[in-house]
Amino acid sequence: MSSAFRLGDIAERFGLELHGDPDTLVRGVGTLAQASPEQLGFLANPRYRSQLASSSAAAVIVRAVDVESIGVCDQALLVAADPYVVFAKIAALFETRMDIPGGIHPSAVVDESARIAGSASVGAFCVVEANALIGDNAIIGAQCHIGPDCEVGAGSRLMPHVTLVCRVRIGQRATIHSGAVLGADGFGLAFEHDHWIKVPQLGGVRIGDDCEIGANTTIDRGALEDTVLENDVRLDNQIQIAHNVIIGAHTAIAGCAAIAGSTQVGKNCLIGGGAGIIGHLTIADRVTITAMSLVTHSIRNPGEYSSGTPIQEGKLWRRNAARFKHLDRLARQVADIEKGTPNE
Amino acid sequence: MSSAFRLGDIAERFGLELHGDPDTLVRGVGTLAQASPEQLGFLANPRYRSQLASSSAAAVIVRAVDVESIGVCDQALLVAADPYVVFAKIAALFETRMDIPGGIHPSAVVDESARIAGSASVGAFCVVEANALIGDNAIIGAQCHIGPDCEVGAGSRLMPHVTLVCRVRIGQRATIHSGAVLGADGFGLAFEHDHWIKVPQLGGVRIGDDCEIGANTTIDRGALEDTVLENDVRLDNQIQIAHNVIIGAHTAIAGCAAIAGSTQVGKNCLIGGGAGIIGHLTIADRVTITAMSLVTHSIRNPGEYSSGTPIQEGKLWRRNAARFKHLDRLARQVADIEKGTPNE
Amino acid sequence: MSSAFRLGDIAERFGLELHGDPDTLVRGVGTLAQASPEQLGFLANPRYRSQLASSSAAAVIVRAVDVESIGVCDQALLVAADPYVVFAKIAALFETRMDIPGGIHPSAVVDESARIAGSASVGAFCVVEANALIGDNAIIGAQCHIGPDCEVGAGSRLMPHVTLVCRVRIGQRATIHSGAVLGADGFGLAFEHDHWIKVPQLGGVRIGDDCEIGANTTIDRGALEDTVLENDVRLDNQIQIAHNVIIGAHTAIAGCAAIAGSTQVGKNCLIGGGAGIIGHLTIADRVTITAMSLVTHSIRNPGEYSSGTPIQEGKLWRRNAARFKHLDRLARQVADIEKGTPNE
Repeated sequence: MSSAFRLGDIAERFGLELHGDPDTLVRGVGTLAQASPEQLGFLANPRYRSQLASSSAAAVIVRAVDVESIGVCDQALLVAADPYVVFAKIAALFETRMDIPGGIHPSAVVDESARIAGSASVGAFCVVEANALIGDNAIIGAQCHIGPDCEVGAGSRLMPHVTLVCRVRIGQRATIHSGAVLGADGFGLAFEHDHWIKVPQLGGVRIGDDCEIGANTTIDRGALEDTVLENDVRLDNQIQIAHNVIIGAHTAIAGCAAIAGSTQVGKNCLIGGGAGIIGHLTIADRVTITAMSLVTHSIRNPGEYSSGTPIQEGKLWRRNAARFKHLDRLARQVADIEKGTPNE
Repeated sequence: MSSAFRLGDIAERFGLELHGDPDTLVRGVGTLAQASPEQLGFLANPRYRSQLASSSAAAVIVRAVDVESIGVCDQALLVAADPYVVFAKIAALFETRMDIPGGIHPSAVVDESARIAGSASVGAFCVVEANALIGDNAIIGAQCHIGPDCEVGAGSRLMPHVTLVCRVRIGQRATIHSGAVLGADGFGLAFEHDHWIKVPQLGGVRIGDDCEIGANTTIDRGALEDTVLENDVRLDNQIQIAHNVIIGAHTAIAGCAAIAGSTQVGKNCLIGGGAGIIGHLTIADRVTITAMSLVTHSIRNPGEYSSGTPIQEGKLWRRNAARFKHLDRLARQVADIEKGTPNE
Repeated sequence: MSSAFRLGDIAERFGLELHGDPDTLVRGVGTLAQASPEQLGFLANPRYRSQLASSSAAAVIVRAVDVESIGVCDQALLVAADPYVVFAKIAALFETRMDIPGGIHPSAVVDESARIAGSASVGAFCVVEANALIGDNAIIGAQCHIGPDCEVGAGSRLMPHVTLVCRVRIGQRATIHSGAVLGADGFGLAFEHDHWIKVPQLGGVRIGDDCEIGANTTIDRGALEDTVLENDVRLDNQIQIAHNVIIGAHTAIAGCAAIAGSTQVGKNCLIGGGAGIIGHLTIADRVTITAMSLVTHSIRNPGEYSSGTPIQEGKLWRRNAARFKHLDRLARQVADIEKGTPNE
């Protein structure tokens, strides 16, 4: 049932130098600590080097620079410039793909104006609304909702229970995980005297090629223009992207982060889990925001940015936090002392 | 296909002074920067005034106070006390409403004890449980779940994939976005010796008229009494409202905020994105909480409140954060210096 | 329609001392403030003691230590070691259980390789995929998705709209609330030159017995090994559990908290709402993390831990926050003063 690969074939396929028996069979991948003698492990993080000696793995992917220091060992070695990248590719050989029946499930409700490629798959209890387009080899999981004027590009996949509300265009080879809601109304409100008026959200959402959108993530459609994710943007679970946000190519965002309306995030950024960026800002390319930091002004230069305070034992933290409430006074006291003007 | 309106008719309809040709046709709305010569823009935020000169918009909604300083310009001007409010109303003219087929979709599963108004609409694959009530002209999107003893008031709309679990009553003209879950069990637990016991959640959820609930937002039902949103409360996406919370009328809450059990939030409050309020507190009317602040005590007075620290470059932040861990000692050192008792 | 119980019978059933008339009938439970003369209240939090005198409750559950100080009162008293625990048990007597029709709803789409116990219930519009197992008396709410190789243990309950994506095994008597997504791909990425490569997520999710998972919570499946919740773990709404996290038995986590990949949380921990724990850490047993704190290093000892700063009025907060940006310099100034080396 599980596939087996010769180590020699793997080395050839991925262009890797092999130290060891090319006829060794590998039937899976694992961590150094847990891999069985028929599995392949990897050493990317030096922290785990000590596990190498006791690992039962058949073979280990390592950096060239590590080969010498490892010396003689029980495992075969596959030498890679980036062991984690190569591991990702090899692991994909062992991924059991869920069986996707082609075609449109008989239970699906599809508007007559929708166009669905013959090679696409639409799961049970899906609803496909007016003018929707579903491209070649796209897979729409069960119980999805494809709203009016939505497009799913060739080779893209929606897992079960995804909702595309309205005017959402998804590029090619994208993956949208369960529970994600794309194209809901942006949060646009105007206050008139004593009550709120809803501002119509007339824009849409554009998701580039190769993007990944995590489970229960929400991406609202724009007020006038579109909310945009450029190609290869990677969003984890439970992220909130407000209307008219633009996210540059290759930016990756960890779980529970939130970006408020009309903010532009650059390319190749890394946004940590639970981080927030307020609205109408511009974040440069190659910016890293650490977990749970709040960005309240535009960032013009690449680099790492943080806010918050370190975790401490409660009784220490409470004392320090109490002092924070009077930090300005403390700073003025120090200034007065320096000036020789003692505080009364 | 798209509607067109005479500028003169728009001015008359919304009671606006018009500077320009009343016969100009407007076919849509846009930002100053992007509006086409057949679109209407607005100037609410002075930051965007510089875009006026280069805008191609047919007409712009402005404040009376701005008319003189704008002077002669290519665009027609519509003068409004609050340009954003008027813009919201005019934009609604150009909103293409999704086509809602009336009646109950043949695939829906409806309990025989449920009562659904003849003018209401229930979408494909909906489940409507025992004793549910759906009012006049209410729209239940596809794949929704209307649990037992739930009510949807006249003119309210549930987008696709909304779940009303149990004992949820929604007023009139409310909008609930996709993925929202209302009426799930509150998080009530009692610890007995060595394990948790679930505390039954016997209350419900009451949502007032004109409320809006964002995508993937959760509102738990009460333990004994109800969780309540008064009229015209506006919740963005991914907000968590715990059991027995009460939120006053016209309060608006931005994405990813969370309010813990039994807290009462006043009327006309503004809660920023990602903000948290712990349980059993009382927040006065007209309180603003800035983004990602944590409220740990009741707030008696209107005004703006914040917690947290500013975003900084990582290497600066790390130094400051390290000092925060000893802030209490620092304050004592300063006090000692002031007293002339040098620290050893 | 509503059940009624003799106070004497309740006392006997739960082993409680009763001060008052055993023939008093109780038809429900309530808060001290709101209970009707036919309802039973409880006094667990001393803060509410003042409400006792004016309460209309038929009877009140109290601690032995409180009986004397209460003295003569109108209500009957039930004496319990832990009034809240006993209240939870008594309240369960009055819970109206939703009517669950047994068997598989005719609309459900069930793969022929799935095995569903005869005593289990599968709701309308459910999809049950290949090799799924559903145990005795398990209840699968309407519109759920049970993906390939997923198991739901005996007596467990999925509320409507739950998604088990792939390789999710749920123990016995667990409850999963609406909108929860278990077993989605972990967020595993490797960067190759100029683009991201997806790291296959080959593990699964294991949920122990008696666990509860809140609405819209997400638990990703592991990269190589499983993501694990031990028995009796209790998760509130909108929590994000990343791949390969392990959570110890009896740990309870409040809404919107997030735990990053490969972190291990001990047993009997309490994680506050909106708290975050970064990846690859180890948290000891009996650790409490307060709301919205961020844990950035492993915690070896039980106790309470916090980060962040207190909420303040905006104009005070802004001054203090501005000083935080220069806290390191301030500390060096103080050190210089102490050394008698005045700063220039």
